Amino acid sequence: MISREKHDRMANAIRFLSMDAVEKAKSGHPGLPMGAADIATVLFTRFMTHDPKNPHWADRDRFVLSAGHGSMLLYSLLYLLGYEDITIDEIKNFRQLGSRTAGHPEYGHAAGIETTTGPLGQGFANAVGMALAERLLNARFGDDLVNHYTYALVGDGCLMEGISQEALALAGHLRLNKLIVLFDDNQISIDGPVSLADSTDQCARFEASGWKTLRVDGHDPDAIAAAIEEARGADRPTMIAFRTTIGWGAPTKAGTNKAHGSPLGAEEIAKTREALGWDAEPFTVPSDILDDWRLAGLRSAKERKAWEERLAAADAETRAEFERCMRGDLPEALDQAIDDYKKKLAAENPKVATRNASQMALEVINGCVAETVGGSADLTGSNNTKTSQTEAVTPGNYSGRYIHYGIREHAMAAAMNGIALHGGLIPYGGTFLTFSDYARPAMRLAALMGVRSIFVMTHDSIGLGEDGPTHQPVEHLAALRAIPNLLVFRPADAVETAECWQLALKSKKTPSTLALTRQKLEPVRTEYEEENLCARGAYELLPAGDEAKVTLFASGSEVEIAVAAKALLEARGHPTRVVSVPCFELFEAQDEDYRAAIIGQAPVRIAIEAGVRQGWDRFIGTDGAFVGMSGFGASAPAEELYKHFGITAEAVVAAAEARLAAA
Amino acid sequence: MISREKHDRMANAIRFLSMDAVEKAKSGHPGLPMGAADIATVLFTRFMTHDPKNPHWADRDRFVLSAGHGSMLLYSLLYLLGYEDITIDEIKNFRQLGSRTAGHPEYGHAAGIETTTGPLGQGFANAVGMALAERLLNARFGDDLVNHYTYALVGDGCLMEGISQEALALAGHLRLNKLIVLFDDNQISIDGPVSLADSTDQCARFEASGWKTLRVDGHDPDAIAAAIEEARGADRPTMIAFRTTIGWGAPTKAGTNKAHGSPLGAEEIAKTREALGWDAEPFTVPSDILDDWRLAGLRSAKERKAWEERLAAADAETRAEFERCMRGDLPEALDQAIDDYKKKLAAENPKVATRNASQMALEVINGCVAETVGGSADLTGSNNTKTSQTEAVTPGNYSGRYIHYGIREHAMAAAMNGIALHGGLIPYGGTFLTFSDYARPAMRLAALMGVRSIFVMTHDSIGLGEDGPTHQPVEHLAALRAIPNLLVFRPADAVETAECWQLALKSKKTPSTLALTRQKLEPVRTEYEEENLCARGAYELLPAGDEAKVTLFASGSEVEIAVAAKALLEARGHPTRVVSVPCFELFEAQDEDYRAAIIGQAPVRIAIEAGVRQGWDRFIGTDGAFVGMSGFGASAPAEELYKHFGITAEAVVAAAEARLAAA
Repeated sequence: MISREKHDRMANAIRFLSMDAVEKAKSGHPGLPMGAADIATVLFTRFMTHDPKNPHWADRDRFVLSAGHGSMLLYSLLYLLGYEDITIDEIKNFRQLGSRTAGHPEYGHAAGIETTTGPLGQGFANAVGMALAERLLNARFGDDLVNHYTYALVGDGCLMEGISQEALALAGHLRLNKLIVLFDDNQISIDGPVSLADSTDQCARFEASGWKTLRVDGHDPDAIAAAIEEARGADRPTMIAFRTTIGWGAPTKAGTNKAHGSPLGAEEIAKTREALGWDAEPFTVPSDILDDWRLAGLRSAKERKAWEERLAAADAETRAEFERCMRGDLPEALDQAIDDYKKKLAAENPKVATRNASQMALEVINGCVAETVGGSADLTGSNNTKTSQTEAVTPGNYSGRYIHYGIREHAMAAAMNGIALHGGLIPYGGTFLTFSDYARPAMRLAALMGVRSIFVMTHDSIGLGEDGPTHQPVEHLAALRAIPNLLVFRPADAVETAECWQLALKSKKTPSTLALTRQKLEPVRTEYEEENLCARGAYELLPAGDEAKVTLFASGSEVEIAVAAKALLEARGHPTRVVSVPCFELFEAQDEDYRAAIIGQAPVRIAIEAGVRQGWDRFIGTDGAFVGMSGFGASAPAEELYKHFGITAEAVVAAAEARLAAA
Repeated sequence: MISREKHDRMANAIRFLSMDAVEKAKSGHPGLPMGAADIATVLFTRFMTHDPKNPHWADRDRFVLSAGHGSMLLYSLLYLLGYEDITIDEIKNFRQLGSRTAGHPEYGHAAGIETTTGPLGQGFANAVGMALAERLLNARFGDDLVNHYTYALVGDGCLMEGISQEALALAGHLRLNKLIVLFDDNQISIDGPVSLADSTDQCARFEASGWKTLRVDGHDPDAIAAAIEEARGADRPTMIAFRTTIGWGAPTKAGTNKAHGSPLGAEEIAKTREALGWDAEPFTVPSDILDDWRLAGLRSAKERKAWEERLAAADAETRAEFERCMRGDLPEALDQAIDDYKKKLAAENPKVATRNASQMALEVINGCVAETVGGSADLTGSNNTKTSQTEAVTPGNYSGRYIHYGIREHAMAAAMNGIALHGGLIPYGGTFLTFSDYARPAMRLAALMGVRSIFVMTHDSIGLGEDGPTHQPVEHLAALRAIPNLLVFRPADAVETAECWQLALKSKKTPSTLALTRQKLEPVRTEYEEENLCARGAYELLPAGDEAKVTLFASGSEVEIAVAAKALLEARGHPTRVVSVPCFELFEAQDEDYRAAIIGQAPVRIAIEAGVRQGWDRFIGTDGAFVGMSGFGASAPAEELYKHFGITAEAVVAAAEARLAAA
């Protein structure tokens, strides 16, 4: 048992490391680490099951700092507990180029940082995904291998963001009882008191979605401990509202927005040292306190050892499967299954929408990749994300592998990131491509973190028809392609869809988006090819009959238009190549020779995509022709819209001949 | 008083128009119009103050169909009530090309459609903005001119979307008592029962944010009326949860997700006719019922006339100001004020961040444009959106003109759209550019509708420094430029910032985004020019000393780098032009001669922007050089980041000389 005096000094170690690091960096957020230091100290000295020497231990508790601006809280903890990645020099280099201690916690910078946070509310929804992953894996592998808690520290900002509602409603519905949200209820936001903008009773709001809630003094260690203890025993997720003082300990700035996001200043820090009786130099933790913290860092070593013994004692097959899933490796059977499926497609050449083709591919994938977890934001029958293997997860029963995320695209994407970050599972989830806008902040974080979340985005153009311009993406392909490290796939038929799925699954460090049609498409890949042609991002689908005068570049549903236009153009004496472009990003990753060969030498280059031109100049040059959209869509049957907006083989022919005549 | 029998037949008129139109279109959503027909009938026959013959009457009640997929409910109502835009032929042409009756309600297609809905939750947040606008204008012009209700019909989907939480928390906090939300609580979503994904007690949730709530049978006209009556008298916003049956009246599909989003089919419709005793042909409303509806359409004609008399009786100045604001015209004094301000800038040449320059411009603007309503998503001191004229609006006191939106970028943007749609006010609101992702669905709708919402997006690049990659936009400029009909301004100094603000205000039919720096910038426009040079989107800032060998294109904070690079290049014998590019969209709107002259003939073209290249090929061609970002940013002081990522005058010189050598 830690005495109150010892607790206070341990918590003050967090406070001084934080305020001194922010002061040295001349930027950062001292208020949260100082205010939440007591909560964090209790959590990490009495409850957190983790092992700083084995930070990737699969069954560790997860701690998410959703209020990511308080990054010094996390860095201080990791240093004090003995995580090797965070040395005192890293603390001194807070917010400097190349340091592990970035302004906001960055996943991958150091062990112990479970997710990248900063954009508010994301960490909360990540934690929901992690807690869900824990229950799903528990259902598969049992208490012996998977049985841990997920803690998320959230601030007022996290709870004002809409994503928090989606996340809490999903967690409450699914009764994720091992999820514990620690609300740093300091009543201060950047503009001033939270009461400037909000009067929500947060506990009542969480209770409305089935959570247990507690209200506790966030500076009383025993009360904090009692609350966490109670939460751990709950049969549903728990939110503990800890009333805290932002910048606790700073004589003049505590309790005000002046403590939130700027250095306290030398004078205030000196006064804080005096007030708290802390005479250690900056970046020096008195050795007895550091010893106490390091001891706290060892508290779960025995548990980890026992867990390893249980894993060693498991039957070989279970153990191998568990370890493979946690490594993120795919089962060996997958490639053969996809290959067999491609042979079947070549024999049958189905004329299907790529959303249906995606379901067909998933039927194959889910049959041999047990770790996929599907879902949709209430568009299951439209996104075609459910297969024969995927029973729905229901409240309290986690044996299924399909999530009804509800009409919550944002939390779906962020929870998928949490599932991927937890490890052991591969999440995919669907909505309409136009609603990628709702999920975009989480999709960006998937790309920034480099996690394998797979976004299944159907209804990918005006081809969806009557629902009209609110539902018709026109700028979304360009906008998603603009995000670094996100693979945007737009397959042209069932074969390309299977290949793109295979690539998405194999991209362990990159999220993927699959843009899929509502409408049926003619198959364009009718011959069996062993090679995954989509892997190079763009490839010559059809060579010109003779020396090419025209090259047509197209993606997805417009490839069939390119194929039709080629026939028309060649009948009119213009040899024409067709290049299918399922993935810009993979094409850019090819060597220059390959890229030059694909671009080719034809004097006329035309791109066809039922979206905006932005990005296509890479293929066609600024003087190439673009057959696509230049504004919003309209409400009408799909075929009429294609004609209305001039995205037809005839329009391609006209554009080509106009340019051939001018050349 | 309308008898129960008459009510039922009037409601059934909505039901049959809706199911028959969906049937004919072979697509659409019959379930909501059938389920909510009783609520709508009571609302429009007993409460709505509006005038179909004068549909733009400023003091009308606003009705927002947030659950936009139920568009046939709105179209049926508008037809039945006598709105001239919606004829029976329009009903027959539901979802067809060129009709006013698009798949989802489209603002501008017909009077009576107050906003574009479909993306769920948006309409709810629009309604919050409308209700706020009503209170703000009431505070300015009094009960005589502005005193009306805002009704929003929302579904389960609207309430699951996170934006609904942001919207309800804001409305509850601001105590918008003339906002009444009608929740079509039919317990059915697309995937099946709502209970698949949600167990939220919606009334408890709204109450947690200060709303009055009522639970009512949505098929009992008197109970519906009593609830609306009670809501109208409340001292806070009210949410009425109407328990309804989706597809009410359809013998086998009512109450199931089969009634949600597909035609009912001829057989089910025939059975519904039988069950409800409706023998009229499709698209024929029995004349007595149509008469009753048309009579209901006249119910507020007297009130409108009385209002017009009050307006006529108001003093001339008030009346002129009210009418000017409602027309959306700017005060004449603005241009002169901006011109005076530009002269002052030319005399002082301040070295300021463009976020500060924006505040300086706003100080001028807010001083003469009384109808601006500012705000920020809890970043007031960072976005610099508050000026000396803008007192904050507080709960129940609407005399101010600054909104603390809270950490709610999405609802802020959607509420701004609602304010703009209401008319009489010009909303602007701030957040960091990277969080435009959170607001994006609402920004897209602003563009689709063509409303004057002005998004002030500061911290627009790695130039924000230590907060790191989560906070540093790299793809956001490209992603926003991809949205049709959205002006994206990125001014280079205080003069350009003033010009861009002027353009944003003058764009009545187009939303604008201003991307502004955190860091200080050297002035690049040091001489007074009467002309608004930013109006053409791109202009030659500095000509070459001699025949140009190099043209440098840049926006915002990188224009000073271009200017510095020009000096270096000319010192090394390479005549260099500098083109400032504050707005791609306005440049594209220029004639070809102008555009060609700006692109110019220099053999080497280089673009400089601290974002991704996507979109810049338009200026530099695919063989031009781009000095900018190709991946995510990092956490470090801004100057170090510019060096680290090679966005410097020296890097520009190197790129230019490499190309000059190759040329």
